[in-house]
Amino acid sequence: MAEKRVYFFGSKKAEGKASMKQLLGGKGANLAEMTNLGVPVPAGFTIATNVCQEYYSNNAKWPAGLEAEVSKNIKKLETAMGKKFGDPKNPLLVSVRSGAAVSMPGMMDTVLNLGLNDDVVAGLIEMTNNPRFVYDIYRRFIDMYGDVVMGCKHEKFEEALEAAKKKAKVENDNQLSAEQLAELVESYKKIYKKNIGKMFPQKPLDQLKGAIDAVFGSWNSERAIKYRQIHKIENLLGTAVNVQAMVFGNMGEDCGTGVCFTRNPSTGEKELYGEFLINAQGEDVVAGIRTPLEMKKLSKIMPKAYKELVALMKKLEKHYKDMQDIEFTIEQKKLYILQTRNGKRTAAAAVKCAVDMVAEKLIPNKVAVTRVMPEQLDMLLHPSFDSKAKRDVIAKGLPASPGAAVGQVVFDAETADAWAAEGKKVILVRIETSPEDISGMHASEGILTQRGGMTSHAAVVARGMGKCCVAGVGEISVNYKTRKFTVGKKTVKEGDWLSLDGTRGEVAMGQIPLVEPKMSGDFAKFMAICDKVRKLKVRTNADTPDDAAAAREFGAEGIGLCRTEHMFFEGERIWHVRSLILAADDYAAMKKELAEADKKDAAAIKKKYADTKKNYEGALKKLLTYQRKDFEGIFKAMKGLPVTVRLLDPPLHEFLPNDAASQKEMASRLKIKLKDVKNMVEKLHEFNPMLGHRGCRLAVTYPEIYRMQARAIIEAALKLSTPKNKVIPEIMIPLVGEVSELAQVKAEVVDEIKQVLKKSRKKLTYKIGTMIEIPRAALTADEIANEADFFSFGTNDLTQMTLGFSRDDIGRFIGQYLVEGIYKEDPFQVLDQNGVGKLVKTGIELGRSAKKRLKIGICGEHGGEPKTVAFCHELGMNYVSCSPYRVPIARLAAAQSAVK
Amino acid sequence: MAEKRVYFFGSKKAEGKASMKQLLGGKGANLAEMTNLGVPVPAGFTIATNVCQEYYSNNAKWPAGLEAEVSKNIKKLETAMGKKFGDPKNPLLVSVRSGAAVSMPGMMDTVLNLGLNDDVVAGLIEMTNNPRFVYDIYRRFIDMYGDVVMGCKHEKFEEALEAAKKKAKVENDNQLSAEQLAELVESYKKIYKKNIGKMFPQKPLDQLKGAIDAVFGSWNSERAIKYRQIHKIENLLGTAVNVQAMVFGNMGEDCGTGVCFTRNPSTGEKELYGEFLINAQGEDVVAGIRTPLEMKKLSKIMPKAYKELVALMKKLEKHYKDMQDIEFTIEQKKLYILQTRNGKRTAAAAVKCAVDMVAEKLIPNKVAVTRVMPEQLDMLLHPSFDSKAKRDVIAKGLPASPGAAVGQVVFDAETADAWAAEGKKVILVRIETSPEDISGMHASEGILTQRGGMTSHAAVVARGMGKCCVAGVGEISVNYKTRKFTVGKKTVKEGDWLSLDGTRGEVAMGQIPLVEPKMSGDFAKFMAICDKVRKLKVRTNADTPDDAAAAREFGAEGIGLCRTEHMFFEGERIWHVRSLILAADDYAAMKKELAEADKKDAAAIKKKYADTKKNYEGALKKLLTYQRKDFEGIFKAMKGLPVTVRLLDPPLHEFLPNDAASQKEMASRLKIKLKDVKNMVEKLHEFNPMLGHRGCRLAVTYPEIYRMQARAIIEAALKLSTPKNKVIPEIMIPLVGEVSELAQVKAEVVDEIKQVLKKSRKKLTYKIGTMIEIPRAALTADEIANEADFFSFGTNDLTQMTLGFSRDDIGRFIGQYLVEGIYKEDPFQVLDQNGVGKLVKTGIELGRSAKKRLKIGICGEHGGEPKTVAFCHELGMNYVSCSPYRVPIARLAAAQSAVK
Repeated sequence: MAEKRVYFFGSKKAEGKASMKQLLGGKGANLAEMTNLGVPVPAGFTIATNVCQEYYSNNAKWPAGLEAEVSKNIKKLETAMGKKFGDPKNPLLVSVRSGAAVSMPGMMDTVLNLGLNDDVVAGLIEMTNNPRFVYDIYRRFIDMYGDVVMGCKHEKFEEALEAAKKKAKVENDNQLSAEQLAELVESYKKIYKKNIGKMFPQKPLDQLKGAIDAVFGSWNSERAIKYRQIHKIENLLGTAVNVQAMVFGNMGEDCGTGVCFTRNPSTGEKELYGEFLINAQGEDVVAGIRTPLEMKKLSKIMPKAYKELVALMKKLEKHYKDMQDIEFTIEQKKLYILQTRNGKRTAAAAVKCAVDMVAEKLIPNKVAVTRVMPEQLDMLLHPSFDSKAKRDVIAKGLPASPGAAVGQVVFDAETADAWAAEGKKVILVRIETSPEDISGMHASEGILTQRGGMTSHAAVVARGMGKCCVAGVGEISVNYKTRKFTVGKKTVKEGDWLSLDGTRGEVAMGQIPLVEPKMSGDFAKFMAICDKVRKLKVRTNADTPDDAAAAREFGAEGIGLCRTEHMFFEGERIWHVRSLILAADDYAAMKKELAEADKKDAAAIKKKYADTKKNYEGALKKLLTYQRKDFEGIFKAMKGLPVTVRLLDPPLHEFLPNDAASQKEMASRLKIKLKDVKNMVEKLHEFNPMLGHRGCRLAVTYPEIYRMQARAIIEAALKLSTPKNKVIPEIMIPLVGEVSELAQVKAEVVDEIKQVLKKSRKKLTYKIGTMIEIPRAALTADEIANEADFFSFGTNDLTQMTLGFSRDDIGRFIGQYLVEGIYKEDPFQVLDQNGVGKLVKTGIELGRSAKKRLKIGICGEHGGEPKTVAFCHELGMNYVSCSPYRVPIARLAAAQSAVK
Repeated sequence: MAEKRVYFFGSKKAEGKASMKQLLGGKGANLAEMTNLGVPVPAGFTIATNVCQEYYSNNAKWPAGLEAEVSKNIKKLETAMGKKFGDPKNPLLVSVRSGAAVSMPGMMDTVLNLGLNDDVVAGLIEMTNNPRFVYDIYRRFIDMYGDVVMGCKHEKFEEALEAAKKKAKVENDNQLSAEQLAELVESYKKIYKKNIGKMFPQKPLDQLKGAIDAVFGSWNSERAIKYRQIHKIENLLGTAVNVQAMVFGNMGEDCGTGVCFTRNPSTGEKELYGEFLINAQGEDVVAGIRTPLEMKKLSKIMPKAYKELVALMKKLEKHYKDMQDIEFTIEQKKLYILQTRNGKRTAAAAVKCAVDMVAEKLIPNKVAVTRVMPEQLDMLLHPSFDSKAKRDVIAKGLPASPGAAVGQVVFDAETADAWAAEGKKVILVRIETSPEDISGMHASEGILTQRGGMTSHAAVVARGMGKCCVAGVGEISVNYKTRKFTVGKKTVKEGDWLSLDGTRGEVAMGQIPLVEPKMSGDFAKFMAICDKVRKLKVRTNADTPDDAAAAREFGAEGIGLCRTEHMFFEGERIWHVRSLILAADDYAAMKKELAEADKKDAAAIKKKYADTKKNYEGALKKLLTYQRKDFEGIFKAMKGLPVTVRLLDPPLHEFLPNDAASQKEMASRLKIKLKDVKNMVEKLHEFNPMLGHRGCRLAVTYPEIYRMQARAIIEAALKLSTPKNKVIPEIMIPLVGEVSELAQVKAEVVDEIKQVLKKSRKKLTYKIGTMIEIPRAALTADEIANEADFFSFGTNDLTQMTLGFSRDDIGRFIGQYLVEGIYKEDPFQVLDQNGVGKLVKTGIELGRSAKKRLKIGICGEHGGEPKTVAFCHELGMNYVSCSPYRVPIARLAAAQSAVK
């Protein structure tokens, strides 16, 4: 006996079921599933996917017996619907759709209203008393059939339509009268005849046969084959063909159509939500020509259908365990469900639905966490512009830090500070920002830069502060002297009002009304669900007690990266830092001379370097006091949670001024010659500072700096540590490339710590670890692990070096690279798993091969990016660390990875 | 029965042999070997290494039976030497030495003249009639025994010696009289007593027992244990102890001592070479107080010993199959061989010996290639300073390019050119060099720079030219304005004579006499032997026809790297390059506008950009003509050998002038505003140019540049290719990090090539490959291999990115890193196998996994460095490519790796 080829669904019973997706395709299996559930979907049948395979092995001809089986199912369909194929008095019309087990563009589109012919049209006009509608669907059917099934280009029909409109002197299709449409049907038939060489088929079964052939044929269309190749879709039998009865909501006043949701998609409230139209088609609801009615009104107009619908909504939500978006049609009082799918929803609704459904025991925690997208969560954390407000967008840049901001333009950090102090709201506009701008950035509502990428200074700092930032707006040209910027022919002056959308990367003139984010109780409940599910810890990158406190609010479980150098710029400190730098090389020279000298020469050397020693050690002493206070503040804010402090990382020249005025100020302030300042700037200049004298390399040359920092950390920890909230500082040494380098620098740090502990007579647990941010460190991680208590992957630098991309310089080409698809995503936003990811994997494997329980985290900008969080989870990291405002997103992403 | 513990050697028979190294230690096995060969070494015995183990398992006591066995062997020794231990009339004196299977510092030094005591001293004085000598060896023995065996510091004895000299009012030890020495012996005995608490042992057997104990003890000294740990020496039983009879060449006129070589160590000639002294000790020959006699004279003075020696020399060379350096002593007419070892020799001698020995069939080719060190070969290729001349060294820098040079100081390339044209010899002194200096560098004898490392522009170019270069001499301070440089308090003016030693990195005042290299016929013969042995091909890095021709002379088998950008600076070309750069961005903008515009707008856009188009395309056309000529020259010089051309690599800003004067010149020359020049310089400025807009990234933005270069290459190849010498150009795309990037750029290049070939109606084989110089390229080499005909590892950039080291900036710390051993070698000179090497290995494995026969080479500066060549051989590369003057070295290194 031949295999069963066709599966019927209708009259509350289906021959297929959801699990038969491979055989019936996704759509077919779904229709069967709904039918079996008792949902009144219009009846129909599915020709199984293996028939497509048979068709091809049979030289693209129907296998023997298929025709009979299709005929039999048409009969069943006629019975189920109480209509007849080709019967002018009560015609059955059907849709024909392809549907493989995997959704796949490139295959045949839908053909609707199959079964129409001249006789049926006449009958339908009589039935509906709506000739305009009937002629319109007829002409559309001829067009669709001609194009999709027979390959006669749609444009040919379109030309006739244009001609008809011109002749009727109307602009829109719907302005054509019934007569004009009837005429158009005749033109369409002629076009069909001319292009295909045959008359438009009048027999519904011929039409159906042609449509089924077209579906089979589309399985091996060029586009479909290409799509399967690209997406590596293999082992599919073929496509199924779904033939389903059409129903109409526009056949009279006892008909209607509508869309409803099982919960409110805006708020997530559990309430009936939706709208409908009487005597209308689905597209009328969408088109907005008539105003739809509220769902409740249906209970009055068609109480039976309404009651049935409400019951079905409950059933469907319970079955699919998610909020459903349902399309329905009522044809002559009979309710049909055309489609149900998981409903789209706002961020707030997504959170509320997830939380409520857990409370209702509809879904478990691990499902709930998949119901909110990380990007949605981001929207809940930042202000946004009123979506209805008009926007005068003058330029676009990179969406560097999400949110929205409105303020008056200022061009420097000092003005930002001053105006903000007066209570003004300001937008700081800079060509690019530098560490000196930090306080001004803090004072501003938002930041706009002309240059720089997603990981430029402005972007990184703004995200850390949770401030809106639009970066790298190449179209604008900032002129600090005239205190203006231009974009095209427009000029924006200091004090002008500007609106920034950091989520979209838009710059608009004037003041767009802001909508503040609402953090509902549901948000906290949802995050608690995430925390129950996830395995990965989430820390934050925070450099100040304020940041640390904010991050704790967002649920950070520690600090993964506390950058000490940002502390070096504040207030008086920079002068001590500069003093230190000026003396550093001489101090190193002194040490070398002393080491090589006889005892008797030592005194002379010491005398020669007396000033150097005083300046260098004096500056260190001052900085020690400052840093100790910084760390005390951070330890206090984190209340015993782990804090990873990275020792000094940037090259020293970053702390020296480059412009003439600041250099002059430095000379006068430090009472030295301007020439000496200039000489030092020149001496420290680097061609590629990214790959220069920075990180632990500085500590090899000037070990006293790391010693000072280590002392500050340990002294602060000793002061703040209590039996209840033990402070366990984690000291992180940056830019290690070779284990000997780490060993040497670590030995200095440990020696200093031992001195502090000895003097204090107290005990303190501390850890010393390293960043893995140089490719060589990842490649030799087994060696490095022997000297490290923990690893933290610095994926910003690792990306720069692995890809050879200076993030400050790729602006000239990265846009084109992304547009042309050379890289699918900006590697500084989404971790490049195929390249950098391999090094991360190697680093973890080697590290753990040497030290099984090595604690491993990530502290690059990628640490808050959902795909990267998933990758970190897969690789078995212990934690991710990200800017405070990304912490909730990382918690969610971590939970989602845990259930993947 | 207990295992044999002691192995005797003497009277032409030994109980051990060479293969018993594990048991007898290296020294013991060698002495046995020589004895068995019939070489008259002073007799002795070896206590085996397993006895050391027994000693330790026996609580650091002699195992039972050892004392008896030692006594027995002392008897045998007395018989063999015809002397007696402790016999004043005919005393046997011995040396005691440690000796494990692996040579290992940290163990006990030699104790000489063991067996001396007061009685023996008296007897010896009678025998030799030389009390001074006898007292001197006695006092030395007490010192050595006290220090090495008993642990009484040598300094204590030294104090007494100083006191004696002061008292005698003499300066040197050898000015002390016999009486004074006799007195000193008594002082030494007292010191011994005082520090050790016992009298100095008078019984020779007691002395021997003490010395043997000391050898055993030294096996587990801290230093020895540490050494074994560091060098991972495991599985050794312990140390052996060698006890050997002393012989004296200073016991009368029938005694003597000398050193001889089996071939001339200066020239390699096969002739008797050496010198000797009658009635003297070995140290007298070395000390140079008496003038030694030529070997031939020995045939007159002691014909029998002479004849025996000559026969032994032949025997030893034949046995050890290498030139021998032999120490001998004649004691009362009897010849003893104290030591034979492979003789040190000059570079020229090494080459001649290797070639001659192959001709004599003494050694096969694969041994011959191990007999010359690659560094020696380097010396043969460059001039050097007369080793006897005095040097007034004023500063030291990096030995950036080997050789020596003498010339008058000039401070810019133009002056170098001009003075050289007048026939003057010049040394070009620059702060650092840039591509604009190339012609001036060519005109100079040598180059001296204040800044820059081993791979700075000056260093790389100088090595390519085979010019001597001393780079990065931080001590000097160059002032272009005053045309002077200072070093300390010294000032050197333009026109002053300077001598540079590029092999040592020295800068000296005045004119040191030069010795020109002699390239003997043996050199060519030796290289031919290398070529027979090696498997790795050797190509060269050459950018000009001259370089290419030079490299062929040195045996290059192709060009592995022809950099096209150096060609961009010459003469008129730079102006066209600058024209191109000025128009490039507008040209790209025009293309974008045209692509997006309607047809009707196209004309307006074209009109707007008419000048841009003219300038851009005009410049390309000019450059095409130049480049085609360049490639024709190179293809011609290489006569059908493969030539790999790398397309444009550096960032465009390298071609723009940075100083005000040159910018002004550019503006006037190109008839544009100075402001526009400055704007372009600023626009193209990069923070980290190494990681910026360069390499194939330029071709993504400006595909026309690579198209022009590809056209020039193919047109030149078509012109030069003949059926006999087919030109097969290999086009290399630099800085690829992702396969899509290569695919896109390659598609443009291939399209251009197809156009050229179609028009020419000729066929041509060409290859398109890529550099692997970005870590990501190595990590995704399997993907990249699908688009590449070959890989060439660019290990300069790969090192920069893998280590995070900008080679232009590491000057501030790399010195310290090397001194402190953080890196054992400069990673830009010797490939960092542990880090970068892993990426190279990964790249090769992945590449060949996708394309089994993928051709792979290396073209970084490392390609001519012997250890790296060996590494490339091991990894299965097809070729290395290096600068012309390194080609012979690479050929040798490749041969040595093949026999490893």
